Parts: sequence; structure tokens; C-alpha cells
Amino acid sequence: MTQTKFLLNETDLPKTWYNINADSPVPPTPVLHPQTQDPVTPDFLSVLFPMELILQEVSADRYIDIPEEVREIYKLWRPTPLIRARRLEKALGTPAHIYFKNEGVSPPGSHKPNTAVAQAFYNKIAGTGALTTETGAGQWGSALSMACNFFDLPLEVYMVNISYQQKPYRRVLMESYGAEVFASPTDRTQFGQSVLADDPESPGSLGIAISEAVEAAVTSGGKKKYSLGSVLNHVLMHQTVVGEEALKQMDMAGEYPDVVIGCVGGGSNYAGLAYPFLRENLLNDQNARFVAVEPTATPTLTRGPYAFDYGDTAKMAPIVKMFTLGHGFIPPPIHAGGLRYHGMAPSLCSLYDAGHIEAVALPQLATFEAAITFTRSEGIIPAPETAHAICAVIDEALDAKEKGEERVILFNFSGHGHFDLSAYQTYLNGELEDYEHPEEAIQAALQHLPQVNL
Amino acid sequence: MTQTKFLLNETDLPKTWYNINADSPVPPTPVLHPQTQDPVTPDFLSVLFPMELILQEVSADRYIDIPEEVREIYKLWRPTPLIRARRLEKALGTPAHIYFKNEGVSPPGSHKPNTAVAQAFYNKIAGTGALTTETGAGQWGSALSMACNFFDLPLEVYMVNISYQQKPYRRVLMESYGAEVFASPTDRTQFGQSVLADDPESPGSLGIAISEAVEAAVTSGGKKKYSLGSVLNHVLMHQTVVGEEALKQMDMAGEYPDVVIGCVGGGSNYAGLAYPFLRENLLNDQNARFVAVEPTATPTLTRGPYAFDYGDTAKMAPIVKMFTLGHGFIPPPIHAGGLRYHGMAPSLCSLYDAGHIEAVALPQLATFEAAITFTRSEGIIPAPETAHAICAVIDEALDAKEKGEERVILFNFSGHGHFDLSAYQTYLNGELEDYEHPEEAIQAALQHLPQVNL
Repeated sequence: MTQTKFLLNETDLPKTWYNINADSPVPPTPVLHPQTQDPVTPDFLSVLFPMELILQEVSADRYIDIPEEVREIYKLWRPTPLIRARRLEKALGTPAHIYFKNEGVSPPGSHKPNTAVAQAFYNKIAGTGALTTETGAGQWGSALSMACNFFDLPLEVYMVNISYQQKPYRRVLMESYGAEVFASPTDRTQFGQSVLADDPESPGSLGIAISEAVEAAVTSGGKKKYSLGSVLNHVLMHQTVVGEEALKQMDMAGEYPDVVIGCVGGGSNYAGLAYPFLRENLLNDQNARFVAVEPTATPTLTRGPYAFDYGDTAKMAPIVKMFTLGHGFIPPPIHAGGLRYHGMAPSLCSLYDAGHIEAVALPQLATFEAAITFTRSEGIIPAPETAHAICAVIDEALDAKEKGEERVILFNFSGHGHFDLSAYQTYLNGELEDYEHPEEAIQAALQHLPQVNL
Repeated sequence: MTQTKFLLNETDLPKTWYNINADSPVPPTPVLHPQTQDPVTPDFLSVLFPMELILQEVSADRYIDIPEEVREIYKLWRPTPLIRARRLEKALGTPAHIYFKNEGVSPPGSHKPNTAVAQAFYNKIAGTGALTTETGAGQWGSALSMACNFFDLPLEVYMVNISYQQKPYRRVLMESYGAEVFASPTDRTQFGQSVLADDPESPGSLGIAISEAVEAAVTSGGKKKYSLGSVLNHVLMHQTVVGEEALKQMDMAGEYPDVVIGCVGGGSNYAGLAYPFLRENLLNDQNARFVAVEPTATPTLTRGPYAFDYGDTAKMAPIVKMFTLGHGFIPPPIHAGGLRYHGMAPSLCSLYDAGHIEAVALPQLATFEAAITFTRSEGIIPAPETAHAICAVIDEALDAKEKGEERVILFNFSGHGHFDLSAYQTYLNGELEDYEHPEEAIQAALQHLPQVNL
């Protein structure tokens, strides 16, 4: 019998997170105050985040210890399996070897708890009274709900109203973990009230929800802090447990990846898998290729400029240098809600800009076709976000077939699709649409980038 | 760090299924033709099942080899983890040690594929052209859909109309695996047509769906066979991989269960875990207790008589001896759809009757309360069926606490609740109801048991 799963024991759980900033050949770009455009200070950030996370955000240390309390909770589902997708290889008739790291086995079903648990822990020990956050489709919200529950930390989730109405089950999952979930815009914040005054029936947006969650923290007199599920350095760093485990597991399989693939929205699941392998390129003479996959509906890396922009629509978040479609960009309603962000993690952007990472944009229909191929081969139905990675993997595997190469492909299976079956229904009914932005639309959204003088 | 997960490698995957009939101190009871009441012949059964499964159904062999083709597919998710629920123990403040076998990690989310894959395989090699089956909430239907897809075997699923309408996502999952799903009653069968003639808006029932699936097979001229997800000997036997793995894993944990718990509908998930441990009682001087948990809404073991009855509502299935509420019993619409069966696996009934297994009936509200306690302790949200086992586990753990005993409790986590969040919504909204049958209602449903002269 040939081996399919490569499993680590709890004793193999990583003891440290990896900080790419220690080894990145490109220095970190400045982070600017949204009003003054001066470099942000820890004081500014400390309204939103506990000091330990701010220190991690700016750290130059290569490794940061994972607290035992966090590892104890990771153990509920980590180490996650590395799986060789032999049935998919066979279905494609490819000589390529395809491996995936299954982050869908976490209780909320994605990689998100890797950072949610860490953030809840650091807030708890800093004496934070409650956390606030936003969620769109609900993957981040449910991960943070579980994490806060474990540390007995109250959580307010501002959930985009249209998702709150149309996708009640993620909300029920959050409530099962004990979180309070509000349909955003709410009348709990000034910003929410102003939106509702203009449009009492507002469907909401991620931008509005972020602004409400931030306002709820900022105006709490220090009692509440805010938590973000991607983009920031410390968030990406918490995800590196994925790649550190995968390195050991590829070793068990007796192979090393030629190419490392993942989908990117804010960048955290991909960075989590890729950065430890990128370290091996930078420090240990490995030569893996890195491919970040985004939707054609939100073509941040492939069509946006590398520029300074606000992290959020309401210009309350810091200005950072990143590939961006403009903070006012309205992404089409694709089902991969986790990939609908106008920007991208600054660290990933700088590595992409310097040529260490490639990027590809894929249309929605092709990703669902790939997802069905995967489901019928491997049994597991992927989240629409993950389907983007799978589609690129299949393209790589078919390219390897054409060239007759035994290429080793590794990707991050960032989450399962159990809460996304309405999207599959739309696809199977032949009602799914692709989105391709005319160049004018991209340029129009870029008109309002801040003018930064450095 | 204390150990939480006990993992086996693929090389530890069982090579045989265990047949309790070889060791059961009570001989198998006769299986009778629904019309003639004569013992059924292989010929009668061969219209529905391939010969290999019929031979397994009546086998007296203790062990039956698992085909390599089946083990290759089991490997996609097996061996499943054994997990020590340390956080639940702590939440309860109990000295008891609580272990669960997580069958929710299979791609369709339950233990059901353990037999679905085997049944699809034996049908494929017997030259079956297609399979038919019924499904209620959809756990069985989605497991068989995945299995048939792997063996390139077409599948027709007759899904209870009300579930088809109200729970579309399980249907989408089945369709994603490539199965054809019909809202039952359909106009595809004579029986369905007759039901629709009486009531064009019929919500359907599991009884009707079974009858349609059986008719579709029987009238196919030998092309199609029928597949059942519980109750039968061969189905329970395929599930024993659960218990065989758990025996090895308890050994890794350095403990042996004092009590083995599971929920029962048809009996397959519980028998799968319990029978290998029961063998150790029978042959190797172990002394574990066995507790089967059913809903008060369907109190088969705790309130039904041990009697001959039809396996299905339409009296097309054989007559078997079992604890039963009567084939005409209409279970209340509890959310644990998989536990809404009027009877119970004959092998399990005979062992219960002989005192080798205990039974307890629990009300729905208490099981959801237990499920939330579990979710907030261990992170994983259970299926409503599994919640019954968890509720009994918590009762055992609190009893051990009262008595100051370090009792070792093992249970089968038969499936996750990702597709059952509407039930949790009802519970969290305070809208969930308990059902308790007046004795007259139970007696009335028992009026129509067949008169069997043996």
C-alpha cells in the first residue's frame, strides 16, 4: 500500500513562529498614520492591539516562541495532515506529485484559528476586556469566536448585513461558540448610525464592518481591543506553523516541493505555508518556485500598482505600501469572499515586487470546475478560496504532464467548503458568472490613492 | 505537554472487519420473507444486494478480509484520531477520563463511508450497473455518493421531499460527488406515483423513500441494486474498523474503557465502536460496560417490545426480530434525523436483550445543551445524533465525579454538525421542543406487528 497521509505527533508541533522580516532581502516599508502620514507609533497602535502583538508586528527576530497556552489549544487539531493527492494525480494523468496541507481540519474549518488563538491569548494576558472584529462570509469570525471562548474573552463580531441575512449558519456557529454577532451597519457605532441614516436598508460591506469594529474598540476607553485576521506581519507570522510542519512532512515523504502554491486575499494562509519554504530558498540554497493565486475579480497583484494606500475603505487604518486596487475598489460578489480585499499583506507584496513570488489571477468558473475535480478525486469539498489554489495546482500538474516532468507541487488547502454549498449549487445549476474588469474601472478606483511624500 | 490525540499510521489500518455473530452468546434470529414469512433465501436477497454482501450478512466467520481497493479509499481519512477530551473533563471538573473516536473527519463528515465504500466496491465488482438508496437528512446519501463516485458507479438517491426542500446543502454535496438526487415521492416509481396521486404536495417520509429506492432496484431487470446504510449485519460489520482502531489507540493511551458509549438509530455507528470491545469482554475477560443512547422521541430499546416486525413502513423489507416501536410508528421531527428509525439492528437487539448492552433514552433539549458544552470545550460542533452520545457521556462523567472515580469513558463521535446549524439556531433561539410519548401512543403503534408463528 502506498502512503497517502504524512502525520506528525503533538511532540512535533512547532515551538516557534517564523518571522520572514529577519531574512527578507527587501526591508520593511514604512507604516503611516492615516491622517498625519507620519510613521505610526506604538502608542497609536496600542489603542487597537495589545503591546505583545505590536512588538511582534515590528520584530526583527527570526523566531518567536509560541506560548505553551497557545500550543495546548493548537493541539486540538494540529499538527494538521500533509496529504499526497494520488487520486487527483491519477485523474489528471500527470507525472507530477501533488501534496496538500489540510488546514480544513481545524474546528472552524480553516487556517484562521492559527492566529485567532494567539491573538486571543495575548489580549487575555494583557487584560483586554473584550475583542471586536468584522467578518464577511464568516470564516475569520468563527475562528476568533472559538479562540475567545477558550480564553473566556467576550467577542463582538460585526458581520456584513447581507451575509448575516443570507448565510445564517456561520453566524450560528459563532453564537454556538458564545460570540455576540451584529448585522453591520449597526446602531451601536457612530459610523454605523451614519450609514443607516443614509440607507436604513444598507446591505453593509466589509469596509463598513471594519470601521464599526475599529470604532467600537477605539471608543471603549481602553476596555476593548480590535483583532484582524490577515494582512499584518504578526498575523502572517502566526500562520507559519503551517509551513514549518509541512517542511517536516515533506521530509517524511522524501521529497521537496518544486513549487509552493496558495490562494491570496490578505495573504495570510499563503504566507503561512510559503515563508518557511522561502527561508530555505534564502538561507539554504533551495530553489522552490512560489505562486500566489488571486481571483480575476480582485486582481491585486496582477493588475494593481505597488503604492501607498489605506488599509480600509473608511481611511481609519494605517497607510501601507502594497499592491492595491484602491481603498475604494468595490470587488464583485464572487463566492470566494475571503479573497475580496483591495490590497495585500505588505511583506508579501515586497517579496512579489522583488521577484521572489509569482502571481496568477484565475476566473471564478475555472476555480469551481477545479474544485469539483478535486472533490471527486479526493473526497473533500474545498472552500471557494481554496479552489483558486487547486485550479493553479491543476494547471501546474498539466504543464508538468506536457513537459513529462515529475514536478513536486505543494499547496495549502486553506479550508473546506461545508459552509459554501450554496455557491456550489449556483455553479452546478450553471448560474455562476465570471468577472473581468475593464482597464478603465481599475484606473478609476486608483484615482484616490493618498499622495505620500517620502 | 500532555497528550491529547492518539494517531495511527496508515499501516495500522485494520485488515479485517469483525463479525460479532462468530462470538455472540445469542444465536442470530431468523429473517423472514415479508409476504410468506418463510426464512428468506439468498435468491430473494440477491434482487437487492450483490452475493458477496449476502454472504457477509449470514457469515459465521469471525474476521472478513477488507479488500485492498476499499482500504486504499479508507486511507483518505482513516485511521481516524482518538482524542482525549481533556478540556471537557476540566469543564466538568470530573476525575473521569473521556476519549472519543472522531469519525467526523471523513470527507462527508460521518462514519457512514466505512460501509458505503465497501458496498460500492462489492457492487462494482459484481457488475451492478447502478445503485439506489434513500436518505433523510442526507448523511447516508452523501457518504454513498462519494463512494459510488470513487468506483464510477451511478447512484440514484431518493431524498425525503421535505429535507430536499428545507436542507438543500446536503443535496448539493451529493450532486457535487456526481449523484442524481430526487425529491421523494417521485413520479419515477409506481409507489411514488400512488403517493402523489393521493397528495401531490406530499412532504415524503423515510418509509416512502425506502420503498421507492427498493422498487427502483427491484424493477430494473437486475441492472440496479439497493444499498442500506445501517441495521444489516454486513453494514454493522463494515463499521468495526472504528472499534478495531480504537482498541489500538486506547492501548497507546495506556488505558482501557470502563464504559463504551454511542448513539443508536439503526445501530451501525455504535456497533462499529462497541463490537470489538464487546469481543474483548466475551473472549478476553475484559469488563467494559456498554451504553446505547437513543432519543426519548424514538425510544426503541427502552420502550419497545422485542418482537418480529417489518424493516420498513411499506412491508417490502424482510421481517426481523428486534426491539421496535412498530413499522407504522411516526417519529416526531427531532433534529437527530439519523435516530428516527422504528426498529434497531437485530444483532444489537439480541445483545441488549441478553444484558450485554444497556440503553438510555435522552430528551432533545438536554442533548443540545450537552452539544454546546462540548463545542465550547473541544471546539468541534457535533451532529445532533452525536449529541445524544455526548449527553450520556457527560452524565457518566458527572456520576464518576460524584463517586470520585477515575472512570475511563470512550464514545463514538459519529459526525460533525456543519450541516445541522439550523437545528442549533432553533436551540439557541429557545425554540427547541422535547417529545415524550404517552404510553397509549406507543401501544397504538404496536397494534400492527405481524403475527409470526415460529
